[in-house]
Amino acid sequence: MQADIVKAGLFGFGTIGTGVVANLQRNADVIKEKSGVLPVITKIVDIDTERDRGVDLGGATLGKDKKAILDDESIKVVIELIGGVGVARDIVTSALKKGKHVVTANKELIAKHGPELEAVANESGARILFEASVGGGIPIITPLLTCLRANRVKRVLGIVNGTTNFILSEMESSGASFSDILKEAQARGYAEADPTNDVEGFDAGYKATILSSVAFGKHVDPASIFKQGITSISREEMQFASELGYTIKLLAVLEDSGDGIDVRVHPTLLKKDHPLASIHGVLNAIHLEGDPIGPLMFVGEGAGPNATSSAVLGDLIALSCEIAKPGAAPVAAFKPAMLSPIGNVENSFYIRMQVEDRAGVLSDISHCLVDLNVSIASLVQKALKNNKAEIVWLTHKTNEGNMAAALEKIKNLGCVFEITSVLRVLE
Amino acid sequence: MQADIVKAGLFGFGTIGTGVVANLQRNADVIKEKSGVLPVITKIVDIDTERDRGVDLGGATLGKDKKAILDDESIKVVIELIGGVGVARDIVTSALKKGKHVVTANKELIAKHGPELEAVANESGARILFEASVGGGIPIITPLLTCLRANRVKRVLGIVNGTTNFILSEMESSGASFSDILKEAQARGYAEADPTNDVEGFDAGYKATILSSVAFGKHVDPASIFKQGITSISREEMQFASELGYTIKLLAVLEDSGDGIDVRVHPTLLKKDHPLASIHGVLNAIHLEGDPIGPLMFVGEGAGPNATSSAVLGDLIALSCEIAKPGAAPVAAFKPAMLSPIGNVENSFYIRMQVEDRAGVLSDISHCLVDLNVSIASLVQKALKNNKAEIVWLTHKTNEGNMAAALEKIKNLGCVFEITSVLRVLE
Repeated sequence: MQADIVKAGLFGFGTIGTGVVANLQRNADVIKEKSGVLPVITKIVDIDTERDRGVDLGGATLGKDKKAILDDESIKVVIELIGGVGVARDIVTSALKKGKHVVTANKELIAKHGPELEAVANESGARILFEASVGGGIPIITPLLTCLRANRVKRVLGIVNGTTNFILSEMESSGASFSDILKEAQARGYAEADPTNDVEGFDAGYKATILSSVAFGKHVDPASIFKQGITSISREEMQFASELGYTIKLLAVLEDSGDGIDVRVHPTLLKKDHPLASIHGVLNAIHLEGDPIGPLMFVGEGAGPNATSSAVLGDLIALSCEIAKPGAAPVAAFKPAMLSPIGNVENSFYIRMQVEDRAGVLSDISHCLVDLNVSIASLVQKALKNNKAEIVWLTHKTNEGNMAAALEKIKNLGCVFEITSVLRVLE
Repeated sequence: MQADIVKAGLFGFGTIGTGVVANLQRNADVIKEKSGVLPVITKIVDIDTERDRGVDLGGATLGKDKKAILDDESIKVVIELIGGVGVARDIVTSALKKGKHVVTANKELIAKHGPELEAVANESGARILFEASVGGGIPIITPLLTCLRANRVKRVLGIVNGTTNFILSEMESSGASFSDILKEAQARGYAEADPTNDVEGFDAGYKATILSSVAFGKHVDPASIFKQGITSISREEMQFASELGYTIKLLAVLEDSGDGIDVRVHPTLLKKDHPLASIHGVLNAIHLEGDPIGPLMFVGEGAGPNATSSAVLGDLIALSCEIAKPGAAPVAAFKPAMLSPIGNVENSFYIRMQVEDRAGVLSDISHCLVDLNVSIASLVQKALKNNKAEIVWLTHKTNEGNMAAALEKIKNLGCVFEITSVLRVLE
């Protein structure tokens, strides 16, 4: 399929940058097909040009000189994955001034300098997109700015830091202490050697600030919001909270009362039946209440090279489409497709049937299954009245056609009175 | 604030249409502020022009003649909320042919005639948006077409019919029969007098078809997909499933194996710890697995005039922006805002403290609270060693400033050794 090529330059070739390069190449066919456009990263800049990242650069050059990207007029989009507010801020500002669009996953940069960068972008007509800055791959910023624009957002509650959610989830399930679980999180790569940014709520604070900008259209200084970290959460707190019917989560809490806005980050006791209470481990979730939409929740992986790539590439494709086909909007594709015949589909099954209550019945039934490659995963038999028994069994994954043929054979066995129910089971 | 006006015409002034008119007027200020554009419904067409819907028409005319809208060149967007594939199909086709954009919530129309309508729209340059057709207000179609475009979608699982999810949830929690709960659902307005469309899986089938178009870019005929309804689900099935560790949900199941696609609707046994197993009542949820994003879930209200309005108005605003400001993309607003001082914020609190284990201590503590209007919701006391006791208490909602002042007083009581923990509780 033909596609317009849009050239991009990448700053920062660490874990996330490597994921972006790898996923863009691996999914190039899907991207072209869905968008009619293909962004291509032609230049990468990083301080380390030696290390083998185990990824094919797809023809991109790798160098240390930021001018290689910033001064290249063929590069229309800059991807900033350096992090922090030093070099990253300079690069993003320069790129926007030159009219290059920017995609960034940098929450600290957007939280602290969003207003200033927006002004620079408005002046040159460039755009800056940052879907990956909150919730990793979860689409939250774009939906708030588009689909949900008719809403008055009343409240946003976010589990937006996977490290602290992992620590709190593990403390709750294992009964271990904060410091023991922190060590485990560090060993598993979920927490940094210096965990301050996560466990003291700074990272969640940046994300809360960005959510305020997109949900309420109001920017607050991330330094001014109330932040309480999780270092003081002890085993006793977990235990008492649980006895009282609560779980403890580090939440970003945003409320717009109409009079003023309230943006905070703190450990929060949540009733165990609250939708956010069941978000465990490194998952992120954003729960919002809007008028007229009511409650709405988004759940997904909030970090990692793959999930983050999804958001970075989504922004990159959006900008590439604007550049290559201005005014064209994304549309659904209604290409006719053939369904796989249901007989070829694989499923596990739940079967309930009534049979004669005598020896040999199970053997007769099993005999119908063996030739058709259907195997039983578990089986319960209950005696009923009048010499009848009920059998409920689950199968392993099997072909729908074979299952139907097996049931046809079973139905004709003299010992089977009725096949009462056939349902499918999700593996 | 100044805003460009874009005129729209509404076909269908039932429950959803009334919700759209009411919410558009009520949230006009938010819409203008977020978009710089204000869609205005200037004409409404319905077969019933008499009934009082209890909503201010905001200057719109209400009539029976569809030409009033279709022949009005000032009307740039047509909202179709009639439903079905008779009149609705004619109206949408005519509107698109005349170059008018269309917003519709009509899943049957998009599922059955999406390809044909897309062709008509492509010819005239008009667009047809249908975010409300799946999942009510939940943003799922736009995110799949934009943010998630870099993904190869592997599997989509959807609870996309609130009526059947309500029935199955109630059967599970109450142990009552399908027919009893169906009657209750009909009494509460969750099910139609003739429930066939919902309980036999037709409605979910239309939505599965639409999800296939947007997730895989592949359209299938809704009549050809495998559909099993929930009428045969008995109390016994619920009971056996539960004993085996499963819950039963009516799912739209879509899989793209690479070789072919598989789109089905059937009751499905889901492990009780699957994220979709906890979606109860009339809620809808869409769970997808994409590469590179991994698992992702969206949860919200799948029906009703308010939730549906959010999606219809989101589409209407998107088209209005394209008309009034072609090429301009939605951007975050970084307007500086003042935070409510944390002292003014209201919260409930969890307090743990160590005190002397003697009579009168609780009275001393309570005394510190009463003047500051802090009231205790619940309290647990445990004896410790060395004549000490531990008290854990939850407060009712109170002002942060008052709580801080009360804790300062309590800290200075002779009987209090330590305030060990102060956490916030979500109401």
